[in-house]
Parts: sequence; structure tokens; C-alpha cells
Amino acid sequence: MQAKPIITLTTDFGYSDPLAGIMKGVIAGINPEARIVDITHGIGAYSIKEAALVIGMSYKHFPPKTIHVVVIDPGVGSERRPILVETDNYYFVGPDNGVFSFVYNENKDCSVLHLTADHYFLRRRSATFHGRDIFAPVAAWLSTGVSASKFGESITDYSRLSLPFPSMTTNTTLAGEVIYVDHFGNAITNISIAEIDMLRSANPNRALKITLKDRHIPFVRYYREAGNKGLYALIDSMDYLEIFVYMGDAASEFDIKVGDAVRVDMS
Amino acid sequence: MQAKPIITLTTDFGYSDPLAGIMKGVIAGINPEARIVDITHGIGAYSIKEAALVIGMSYKHFPPKTIHVVVIDPGVGSERRPILVETDNYYFVGPDNGVFSFVYNENKDCSVLHLTADHYFLRRRSATFHGRDIFAPVAAWLSTGVSASKFGESITDYSRLSLPFPSMTTNTTLAGEVIYVDHFGNAITNISIAEIDMLRSANPNRALKITLKDRHIPFVRYYREAGNKGLYALIDSMDYLEIFVYMGDAASEFDIKVGDAVRVDMS
Amino acid sequence: MQAKPIITLTTDFGYSDPLAGIMKGVIAGINPEARIVDITHGIGAYSIKEAALVIGMSYKHFPPKTIHVVVIDPGVGSERRPILVETDNYYFVGPDNGVFSFVYNENKDCSVLHLTADHYFLRRRSATFHGRDIFAPVAAWLSTGVSASKFGESITDYSRLSLPFPSMTTNTTLAGEVIYVDHFGNAITNISIAEIDMLRSANPNRALKITLKDRHIPFVRYYREAGNKGLYALIDSMDYLEIFVYMGDAASEFDIKVGDAVRVDMS
Repeated sequence: MQAKPIITLTTDFGYSDPLAGIMKGVIAGINPEARIVDITHGIGAYSIKEAALVIGMSYKHFPPKTIHVVVIDPGVGSERRPILVETDNYYFVGPDNGVFSFVYNENKDCSVLHLTADHYFLRRRSATFHGRDIFAPVAAWLSTGVSASKFGESITDYSRLSLPFPSMTTNTTLAGEVIYVDHFGNAITNISIAEIDMLRSANPNRALKITLKDRHIPFVRYYREAGNKGLYALIDSMDYLEIFVYMGDAASEFDIKVGDAVRVDMS
Repeated sequence: MQAKPIITLTTDFGYSDPLAGIMKGVIAGINPEARIVDITHGIGAYSIKEAALVIGMSYKHFPPKTIHVVVIDPGVGSERRPILVETDNYYFVGPDNGVFSFVYNENKDCSVLHLTADHYFLRRRSATFHGRDIFAPVAAWLSTGVSASKFGESITDYSRLSLPFPSMTTNTTLAGEVIYVDHFGNAITNISIAEIDMLRSANPNRALKITLKDRHIPFVRYYREAGNKGLYALIDSMDYLEIFVYMGDAASEFDIKVGDAVRVDMS
Repeated sequence: MQAKPIITLTTDFGYSDPLAGIMKGVIAGINPEARIVDITHGIGAYSIKEAALVIGMSYKHFPPKTIHVVVIDPGVGSERRPILVETDNYYFVGPDNGVFSFVYNENKDCSVLHLTADHYFLRRRSATFHGRDIFAPVAAWLSTGVSASKFGESITDYSRLSLPFPSMTTNTTLAGEVIYVDHFGNAITNISIAEIDMLRSANPNRALKITLKDRHIPFVRYYREAGNKGLYALIDSMDYLEIFVYMGDAASEFDIKVGDAVRVDMS
């Protein structure tokens, strides 16, 4: 066990209710040494897909052995299972509703446990707040050095979302979509630099043409390189194609939404 | 003194100003070992009643000896007193404006001190930010092991809110109200499972009928059990009767507000 | 090096994206002992001036040797330089865009380094998120005890904003402006108690007259002293003249905005 175990929290609790604070109290009561880091409590209410993406973008930036707790849990109290996912470097604790789909995708040999060892849960359990009653205490006990296998039984039929991967519709065209709109109104697509590089090597010496809503979007290297207030595209810090307005809000100014089609052409 | 004292913060400061961060700087300057946990800074501006409820729902989930600081303080700078409340397991620091009313109610033998030992305050004190100048430093010194009695003189005439308890209007009827609307739009009432259980034992073999705004609200065990998008009720994680829309926002969809009457009948 | 180094974060990232959380992960991976404190992530998007003011109001409330990281960085990826500012008591890490202007003003002998020692940066650097790739790792390495001089070369041509200082337009008049509107709608001006005291000693035995938008604003000592719901002024916790409505929202009720003129007369 590391000296300073980290537990992160990602939820749709917002910032006005005490739910995240209560989870921190439960963790501190079990392991005073655990350091708790908020990734965000601003996931859209009930949005499993958004949370899957956010934890997928974030988990690798933490030190090995970090325990990531994700609570977007509209099925709490029903038969949906509480789970613990173990990859080579990280642990994930949360509901079995697909919220760890990006993790599964990037860690093919991960193990998934159904959390059944209820002596690690709070003794009194509600039907509405397993973040407090199950996920926080399991993460806290895990952070004290209890081995993962003690918490439940291995399962293989865990839930996965169908992830929105881009497709090569022709040899010269990638069809993708907007998958996330950030706080600045930047529209992040599911087209990564890896796919663009494949397209480029298949089509040497050709220009890249990016299209969103019938607009041609010029491609630049960094935000300030955008010459005016229109839409531009760049490769962002997560290696995804991102569409933005320099010092503006692309999503609200151009009515861009999650799901909008984006095309990259090299014809 | 515990090795890792915890100080929690509950305020109406919001998340755009640096006020909560400044309080953390003051605490760290006095006791670098103190761990600071945000319960929320999203209490409605000046809403003493909301803060009283939120700290009342939260404090017990923290380890014994946790120091809870609450700063909802429209009377700052006036003659309203700064106080320290000590219960069997917890400390509370904040203004004497009723914000600890739920704490008083659940801890009849608590002691309340008027904070007068101003050598524990910041030397320069403003008339507008006692969170920084008085409450943060007192909490920090308390967390270093200074005994509570050093901070001031015992008082008994501290302020209490009149708490909105439900009433049994007949042998078969409980009259309550909505006391909190959470981030998801769930309407939390002041009717707890204890009162419902009393009603049930007084009226065996009868069905429970919940009414809000002339609507009959079906009673379920967990959110997903709700069959459709209408209003449903359940017992929530704090043991209160809560009215919700599954994966919706009950308060905005049905215009539910704090103070709306809720009735439970077993006639 | 202090035992418990503190790193603060001030950004315009908001609370829905994982950016601040990711910076914390990077810091924890380099220095598990660092304590991270959020000042705010609610600075207006791209608002360098607002961030300059907020860090200016906040930094001195933290213990000596605190490292303040500020990421309001619309020029990220361009030739704007990453910098480290060292004053007698504090460090500041961020972009060279004027965001530390109040710090420069209060610490005439500070030293400013262009961050060039890229072995302290993350190995893979994006063109859009230097908070993660440069500022977080530099702050973390600095917190481990690496001396400031190792991170780059001294510069003197760093960027400064022209700060909005008030002016004495006559012997009896101070002309200032609103520089910040807080979460409560209080309008903070750039007129400090020091300037008012100068005006007072130049004009003994005369009454103070405060004017905003052709309204005469009565001067009180604390919020509750305001007799009704109109506009009042007081000296706030940062020693600035502040205009407020008791338990109201001055900015929205009276349409007050940053830049609105405020006058103090003793004629």
C-alpha cells in the first residue's frame, strides 16, 4: 500500500447539496490517511455517458494505485450491481451501469468484481445513496490495504456502453461526432490524432478538410492562432479534434450539441 | 487531540469568489495538520434555515472530534455573537443566528460558548468577514488541541430557529411540508420514517396515502421502481420522505417549492 | 522546504470539466506531500483582469512559501511565456499575460523567471493545456524543494495590466470605479481605506459623500446597519469601499457593473 493513497470523486451531485462532503466524512472515518481529490461533481444529472467520458479522460493523470470513485447512479437501490474494477495501475469503484466503459476499452485485461462483502459497507444502508453507504467505504477500506479480491466475486457480464467511435466511411473520409461540450463552449469530437494520422498516411500530400454543419472549419495549432471569431479546429490536450472560437463560446454561438456530425476529408 | 483533525466548511459564498480559499489559507497558517473538507459553499445567499438543515443532515457522517464551521452570516459586524458549540462528538463554530438549531435539537446537553478570547482571532478584524477573522482561526486553534473552554464564556440564551416539525393532525394523518429541494429537483419533506412508523403502528393494516398539491403520490422503495415520469415518493438516505421524478426534476416539472404542504394519511 | 507545502489553484475552468482535478493528479504524482487548495475555478472565462484581482486579494492570507498557480491562459500554445514569480514570501506560477499585476505592484523587488527548464514539464506537452503540462508540474517540483532559479531565466519585460487606480480629481474628490462584483452582488470599488483616510486628513471636519450613478450612497460600518433595502457603502474585509444592499443583490437590483464610476466627495 502506498503511503498517501488517493481517492478521487466524480459525480453528478452538483455543488449545492452536502452529498460529496458526506462521502468525504465517511472516507475520513475509515482511513484518515486517504487524500480525496474532486475530479468533478458537475456531471449532468443521470448522465452516465458524460461521466464515462470524463473519467476516461482523467484517470491516467493520477499516480498509480489511485482509486477512482464514480457515482452517477440512477439505478441505485435496484438490482444494478455495485462493482470494483482493477486495471494494471488503477482501481475504480461505482455502479455497474457502463460508467467505466472507456476504462474497459483501454484495459482489456482488467478484472471486475461484484461488490458483495457487505461488512465493508456501512452497516445501515439506504436505497438511494450508495455513494455514501457502499462506494465511499469500499474505496476507503481498499485504500487501507485490503486486497481487492476480498470485496466480492469476479464477474464478466458487466455493462458496457456502445462507445461513439468514428468510422472511415471511405478511404479519404472520417465520420465522427461531437461527444462533449466543455465549460468554454469548446466542442470535443471523437476523432483522435491517431485516426487523423492514419488518414494522412493513406492520403499523402493532400489537404485536411474539416466540416461541421456544412461549414468548413480551418485547422490551427493553438487557440490564439485563430485569426478571427469564427469556428476553428485543433488537436486538444487529450489528443482529440476540438472545435472552438478563440476567446468565445463555440457551442452557444454556433448552436453545437453533443451528437452533431463532424467530417474529416482528404479527398 | 486526534492526529488528523478535520475542519469542515459550509457557507453561502458560492464558487466564484476567493472567500472559502482565503479561510483555508488562514487555517493552514495556524495548523498545517488540519484537513479541510468542503461540505458545500452553495447554500442560498443569507439562508440560515437552509444551512441549518444541511449541517444537520451532514455532521454525523464525519469522524468524532470533527470541527464544523458554518458561515451564513448576514449579521456579521453587528452585535450577533460568534459561538462555539460542543456536543459529545463534534464541535461547531459560527455565528449565533440559529444556524445550529438542528444540532441543539439532537444534542440537548450540548454546551455553547460565546467566543470572546480574541487573542485566538486574527489581529486585524474586519466588520464583514468573520469567517476569515474569527471562525477560521478559532477552528484552527481548536484543531491544534486548545481546549474549548479557553475560547469564551458559556451562554444559554443562544438563538434557535423554530424548526418545521410535522404534526399529527388526526390519529390517521401527518401534516408536513417540503423543507429542501436538492440539485436533482427532489423535494425532501420534514416527515421522517420514525413518524411514518408511528402512524403505521397506530393504524395497522391500512394503506399509506401520500398527498402533495392534491395529487396522490405512489410510494416506492427506490428511484428506478417508479414506473413512469410522474411524481413518486420514497424514504431517502436521510430517512425522510422524499418526492421525486425518476431521472427527472420533480421541483421544476411540478413547480414544487420549500414550504409546500405534504400529507400522509392512513384513514 | 516546509514540511507541508501548499499549492493553490485559481482558474477559469469552471466546475463541470475535469481540468482542475487532472492538475491535482499531476501534482500528486510528483509530490505526494503537497497540499492543494482551490482558491476558485470560477473566474470568468478568459478574464485575466478578474483573476489578477482575485489572486491579488487572496495570496497574502496563505502561509509563507505557498505556491500560487493561476491558469487563465487564452494565449496557451502561442509565444506567451510561462513564468515563475518569486516575492519575499510567496511563489506564483502561470502565464505571462499580466495575471500577476497586483503582485508586481505590491512587491516591487520580486523576481520573474521565464520557465525554460523543460525537464520539469510533462514530457508530452499539448498546445492547449499548460496548466497540466507546465504549471502543475513546475509548482509540484518547486514544492519538493527545487530552488526557483533552476526553472528558467530571469526576465524584466514581463507583461503588466494597467491597473485601475482611483484618482484625486480635486483636493476634495476621489474618482474611482467598480472593479469586481461578488457572488452576493456586492460591488467592490478600487477606492481603499488608505485613499479615503488621505482625503479625510486633507479635509478635516467634513462629511463624506459617496456617489454612484447619481445616487447618494449612505456610509455605514457593517451590513446590518443598513436601515432598508437601498444601496449602502462600507469598508469591506479587503479594506475597499464596497456598495451593497443588505440581504439583497446590489448589482442585479441596481444594474451595477464593473467599470461603473464611483465618486467620494468631501467638499
